[in-house]
Amino acid sequence: LLPPAQSDRLDVVLVSPRNPLNIGAAARAMANFGFEHMKVVAPYSPHWREARSAVGAPELLQNAKETSSLAEAVADCTLVIGTGTLTTRKPEQPVVSLPSLAPTVLAELQRGGRVALVFGPEKRGLTREDLSYCHLLVEIPTDLRQPSMNLGQAVAVCLYELATRESPTQDGSTKPEIPLALAPAPKPEPKPSSPAAASGALDLLAGLIERTMAAAGYSPRTLQAANRHGIRLLLRRLRMNPDDARRTLGLFRRILWRLDRSPHSGKDPQ
Amino acid sequence: LLPPAQSDRLDVVLVSPRNPLNIGAAARAMANFGFEHMKVVAPYSPHWREARSAVGAPELLQNAKETSSLAEAVADCTLVIGTGTLTTRKPEQPVVSLPSLAPTVLAELQRGGRVALVFGPEKRGLTREDLSYCHLLVEIPTDLRQPSMNLGQAVAVCLYELATRESPTQDGSTKPEIPLALAPAPKPEPKPSSPAAASGALDLLAGLIERTMAAAGYSPRTLQAANRHGIRLLLRRLRMNPDDARRTLGLFRRILWRLDRSPHSGKDPQ
Repeated sequence: LLPPAQSDRLDVVLVSPRNPLNIGAAARAMANFGFEHMKVVAPYSPHWREARSAVGAPELLQNAKETSSLAEAVADCTLVIGTGTLTTRKPEQPVVSLPSLAPTVLAELQRGGRVALVFGPEKRGLTREDLSYCHLLVEIPTDLRQPSMNLGQAVAVCLYELATRESPTQDGSTKPEIPLALAPAPKPEPKPSSPAAASGALDLLAGLIERTMAAAGYSPRTLQAANRHGIRLLLRRLRMNPDDARRTLGLFRRILWRLDRSPHSGKDPQ
Repeated sequence: LLPPAQSDRLDVVLVSPRNPLNIGAAARAMANFGFEHMKVVAPYSPHWREARSAVGAPELLQNAKETSSLAEAVADCTLVIGTGTLTTRKPEQPVVSLPSLAPTVLAELQRGGRVALVFGPEKRGLTREDLSYCHLLVEIPTDLRQPSMNLGQAVAVCLYELATRESPTQDGSTKPEIPLALAPAPKPEPKPSSPAAASGALDLLAGLIERTMAAAGYSPRTLQAANRHGIRLLLRRLRMNPDDARRTLGLFRRILWRLDRSPHSGKDPQ
């Protein structure tokens, strides 16, 4: 299993779980594989209460953090991973097969980042909106005739994979197959690279960029939702470090300040 | 996932499962990872009926084979693997950690053997008697504070491991860590070795040896149960091929025939 310093920086996030038995099973799998931090987004209250009060419920259920939005749940995370079978949706992010996921996650934990593993509701899975908060998606390889996994079992399989895979070796012999600019620390430098900007910082920046677009008359009202979605994905693709995010935020603050003082602000027909 | 020719030769054996939800979850995990053959030993009838008639129960539950004993369930298997956390019992067989199990199983499937993965009842796990039918035991690495896994989740994690691990490479770079004489096919020979004798053939031989011991006055009545247990384990350690098993059977038949004709048969005080 992972050393506590690493397992302590991984969150399991359940978005609107329904079945109390599934919530309990997810918590039990977390306890089995040495993870403690569960976050629950907008749970159905009666079932959530039932899951927490069940006989033999793992202690971590009592300490689970409840939030009203996924954005809030992952605000302090530097790598957000969505789960699902993706049979219907065309993904907008890189997709990794579960057996190849561990090196990327372990490298992020080792360099001091915080990782969220996000699971959707039992019936419908994560929405396109949910997925836009994810840096990458993980797919559990399953049989095409029965692709959809039970929530508790999906959590167990993902955590088993992360807890028991070898961490990337020094000589690079464990090859990450992730098509992303977030490979494990490069071989010659022993010093690990710094973690990426947290999800909340990206949301702050995205909000500012959106207001700037509006102030510049760049984003017509009918396209605002689409542009918001696109910016969210774009910022996650970039894998900015915290300094870059701060610098970019400062730049857009300045631009917005100037636009708001401009006489044409918001009225430019183009 | 595994090619059908291999997944078709793996049985998931549930010994006396109690909870219908767990039976359903085990079946669903099998369907997820492309396995079809479930065997159920001495199930509690009402719960077994309930699991099979549940809405959305995978088709493989309808085709599951019911037996009254574990010996009967694994009689046609050449490699029988027991599961558990082993925190209390001192194992009498080699123990493999789940992340190291796949090469041994895949090699056995590739050489034409039949593999059984045996899960015990929810509360108590497999008994010492159950385990004596196993060639090796697999241990799922779990946190010491919460070592015991839910049955459905344990099945999911084991099948995920077997279905998604790479098969042993030709250059032997995937090292099996199994302390057993059943390593994957040796490198220089492309021809795979033949599968081992099936569990039922070993039981036949064990029965004959036991009768021979009795006829020779070698096994006092008080030790018969212990000797039976020991012979069962011994025969599995040997990994005889089917020819060896047949030859040994012939030898003991001859010995027994002679002993039965001897005037001292069964009466020898030593």
